[in-house]
Amino acid sequence: MKFSPRLQQLMTALRCLPGVGPKSAQRMAFHLLEKDRDGARGLADALDGALAAVGLCARCRMLAEQDICPICADKTRDDTRLCVVETPADVIAVEESAAYRGLYFVLMGRLSPLDGIGPEELGVDLFKDRLVDSDIKEIIVATSATVEGEATAAYLGRLAGERNVAATRIAHGVPIGGELEYVDSSTLSLAIGARTALGTE
Amino acid sequence: MKFSPRLQQLMTALRCLPGVGPKSAQRMAFHLLEKDRDGARGLADALDGALAAVGLCARCRMLAEQDICPICADKTRDDTRLCVVETPADVIAVEESAAYRGLYFVLMGRLSPLDGIGPEELGVDLFKDRLVDSDIKEIIVATSATVEGEATAAYLGRLAGERNVAATRIAHGVPIGGELEYVDSSTLSLAIGARTALGTE
Repeated sequence: MKFSPRLQQLMTALRCLPGVGPKSAQRMAFHLLEKDRDGARGLADALDGALAAVGLCARCRMLAEQDICPICADKTRDDTRLCVVETPADVIAVEESAAYRGLYFVLMGRLSPLDGIGPEELGVDLFKDRLVDSDIKEIIVATSATVEGEATAAYLGRLAGERNVAATRIAHGVPIGGELEYVDSSTLSLAIGARTALGTE
Repeated sequence: MKFSPRLQQLMTALRCLPGVGPKSAQRMAFHLLEKDRDGARGLADALDGALAAVGLCARCRMLAEQDICPICADKTRDDTRLCVVETPADVIAVEESAAYRGLYFVLMGRLSPLDGIGPEELGVDLFKDRLVDSDIKEIIVATSATVEGEATAAYLGRLAGERNVAATRIAHGVPIGGELEYVDSSTLSLAIGARTALGTE
């Protein structure tokens, strides 16, 4: 069965969304055209609007509609701390934890030489400038707990050390509410290795 | 954490897609803006294009870019049979089975008085016209095997009967390759009730 060309185009275009395969794309295209044409129109407009308006913050590389994002522009935040994360979604996650009131730096990825992602792609030049021209006293590296994430963390730690800025790494271990039975063995072995004395918190 | 307004709008708009909740919408929006702006642009264009070009076939109500869809326009197809389905996706499914070379009629739903879906919403007037002004000798009702699907099938069967057109229902039972162990009990009880003599096929 051949779909009509515009329908086929729509299905192909929907596959640029993460997690959408051919079958979901077909379901989405049919749903939009049969039952939710207003939604489809709204989505097209929202895509155009976001593409035109949303860029990267010139200071932290967070997605932002202004030159400087609201967090960087917020004078009430602690500008001696810089939390380095891989993606804008990570900024949202840290903000939602409400445990941090400092500034951010978004790498938009992690070191991965095999994929051609080196320091340049992660905006490391901008990061170095931030360490020099500011009051930052500590960088908190919150890259992911993967091989690439750890390599990125080590690299950033070295850069900070060379500039006499303290570098810390977020703690890894068993999640709160996590039952030991369901925690994977590498997390558990890390959690045992990094145990802390009782009553120190 | 407040997202920037355009980003928030995009996330809301993405939720019109079936199966996309708040978390997936966030992931999709970030993915498009961080890594696939060309894809996002293509999707916006494809949506606009499909909305402008794709409508319903005037004869069978299938999604089509012409007044009359390619299947209705195809003179080589058997125009004595009319397969009635609920959605355009069902047409695709039947076409892919390659077991049918007749015409179609798409209800775009099924009778569901509680949701305000009556005969009018299903294009029944058009369906009645089809039974009269054509060579159709048999309607094959392929609505879903649900309470509403069965009610719709019974209703269409009555309409066909009044016009001296034969009405059949597709067979329901254990799927090919299905292991009995994993077939749900209502399908199995139906399959036992509708058993056929061995060697009749």
